[in-house]
Amino acid sequence: MAKGIIKLKNAPAILCAASVVGKHESDGPLGALFDFHDKDDRFGQSTWEKAEAEMQHMALNLAMSKNKISITDIDAIFAGDLMNQCISSTYGLIAHDAPFMGLYSACSTAAEALILSGMTVNAGYFKRTASVTSSHNCSAERQFRTPVEYGGQRTPTSQWTVTGSAAFIIADDEGRHPRITEVMLGMTVDYGITDANNMGAAMAPAAADTMIRYFESSGLGPSAFDLIVTGDLGFEGHSIVLDLMSTKGYDLSGNYNDCGLLIYNRSSQDMHAGGSGCGCSAVVLASYLLKLIRDGELRDVLFIGTGALMSPLSVQQGGSIPGIAHLVRIKGDA
Amino acid sequence: MAKGIIKLKNAPAILCAASVVGKHESDGPLGALFDFHDKDDRFGQSTWEKAEAEMQHMALNLAMSKNKISITDIDAIFAGDLMNQCISSTYGLIAHDAPFMGLYSACSTAAEALILSGMTVNAGYFKRTASVTSSHNCSAERQFRTPVEYGGQRTPTSQWTVTGSAAFIIADDEGRHPRITEVMLGMTVDYGITDANNMGAAMAPAAADTMIRYFESSGLGPSAFDLIVTGDLGFEGHSIVLDLMSTKGYDLSGNYNDCGLLIYNRSSQDMHAGGSGCGCSAVVLASYLLKLIRDGELRDVLFIGTGALMSPLSVQQGGSIPGIAHLVRIKGDA
Repeated sequence: MAKGIIKLKNAPAILCAASVVGKHESDGPLGALFDFHDKDDRFGQSTWEKAEAEMQHMALNLAMSKNKISITDIDAIFAGDLMNQCISSTYGLIAHDAPFMGLYSACSTAAEALILSGMTVNAGYFKRTASVTSSHNCSAERQFRTPVEYGGQRTPTSQWTVTGSAAFIIADDEGRHPRITEVMLGMTVDYGITDANNMGAAMAPAAADTMIRYFESSGLGPSAFDLIVTGDLGFEGHSIVLDLMSTKGYDLSGNYNDCGLLIYNRSSQDMHAGGSGCGCSAVVLASYLLKLIRDGELRDVLFIGTGALMSPLSVQQGGSIPGIAHLVRIKGDA
Repeated sequence: MAKGIIKLKNAPAILCAASVVGKHESDGPLGALFDFHDKDDRFGQSTWEKAEAEMQHMALNLAMSKNKISITDIDAIFAGDLMNQCISSTYGLIAHDAPFMGLYSACSTAAEALILSGMTVNAGYFKRTASVTSSHNCSAERQFRTPVEYGGQRTPTSQWTVTGSAAFIIADDEGRHPRITEVMLGMTVDYGITDANNMGAAMAPAAADTMIRYFESSGLGPSAFDLIVTGDLGFEGHSIVLDLMSTKGYDLSGNYNDCGLLIYNRSSQDMHAGGSGCGCSAVVLASYLLKLIRDGELRDVLFIGTGALMSPLSVQQGGSIPGIAHLVRIKGDA
């Protein structure tokens, strides 16, 4: 058990999910699968931070509406985002009158929220929980790097913070749904990366660490799964994971992908190394991956949220960028 | 169950705890009870942020050493702090090689960590967890208000962010220990307070909301407990809670206190409305309150962590300061 796999015997259901995105995400290959998008990324708000909060508000409302659930049916919300003091979650969900647990695990927060939702529903503490996360390109860029309006040059390894929010309703429900059967908590891994424009390299070792712990503990190899998917490593991090895993004797070349690669079209959209952010893995799972699982095209998936635990201040003070990767095993109920 | 009390049937033990504080906390009435203090608040580090991280590192090491536990005995760490992107927890605990769940619930993070530790140990997912939180006066003041070196005038309602960190080891253990018997998650409450120098007023309605939900669900009144203690409301917030609860018919005058009042000496220390911060409730519980529970002087305590979910940016954009309050019921095992 210790530092290993946590089996969720009751296999909590992912009852429903919803995704809300911005223009670039809507223009990407998964565009038709998102529940709502806004062409100017403002969502009717006067600031980027308020726009991000509004996305969380909409995502949770949309997810609940899909199963005709009201907020009184939700026993707990697990939520987080990238903003200082997680204000997108606070303000976005303040109208949703439910017990609230704030989380911070950088871009892996969606996976952390699903882990805690899965564990608490599986144990019978809650009948239904909501897991809500978000990121917004304009609020994130001005907080972590420079305001988008400044027009700074981007490096080839830089990723594009996804404008998006997703909400998942995890429930003790007997119907046919995708189910969370196992979870594994991430451990902080620090390879000494200090370049805030190369998040993929900072997070890749954490993803490999979690995969290796999972494969060693379970006795299963990569081929046991229809898909192994990381959260937002992008081209740089995806390629590093393939190399790191290869040196450990694991061949991931057949069934490993990354949400940061899936969300944009590399040839027609200028997103450099791919998507990133708290919303990236969340909206790809909520739209594309859960659809494939429901349709029976994927039966067994390792969803591995990846996060870079940095702040602008820690980088200015010479700190490295540690990574973390939380694992959620999702099976189809076909 | 919904939005109510979660009973922890196995009553996880608070196996041990440790506290690390700065000079002012050491000079206060609880000074002799803290495990370690540093006279210049720097803890041997070159920046205030690194000093805060070092406090978390020391607090967890001290807590583990009290029961001769090594990090390989810890199945999960639940940790958080007030810094942007929770860097005190990331960097402070990076040397502790254990599964890591990052939390953010402002100054109520210690209670949130104890809730999640209690729930996961009670369910048998983990044998032992660590709950670690911190705040540092100098890192918090320069992030949320102005750098201490600037020497700004403080308002009468302003509180003093506690320099302190505490770690708690929660365990499935049969010995005689204080035990977590019930928890209740907080709900975000917004009374429209916009003054970042009056946190007590912003958090008090959330504390009252949680108390009322608890008393109504449990059928117990305030007199059932030896002590009801909030996290960091200070004089202003403490007095507001007494008033709010009185209007609802609950008399708290006999057994209600606040960690922000306990930690400093109001007559000899110039701390205005009292202590606050992620470390405030954590170090008071880890030192003073757990001692009274172990000694049999307190047998049944409602520990209610209080948090103000604001950021400087949200205040600048005209946002109000919502509050939240998480409840942990701790009983002596005498």
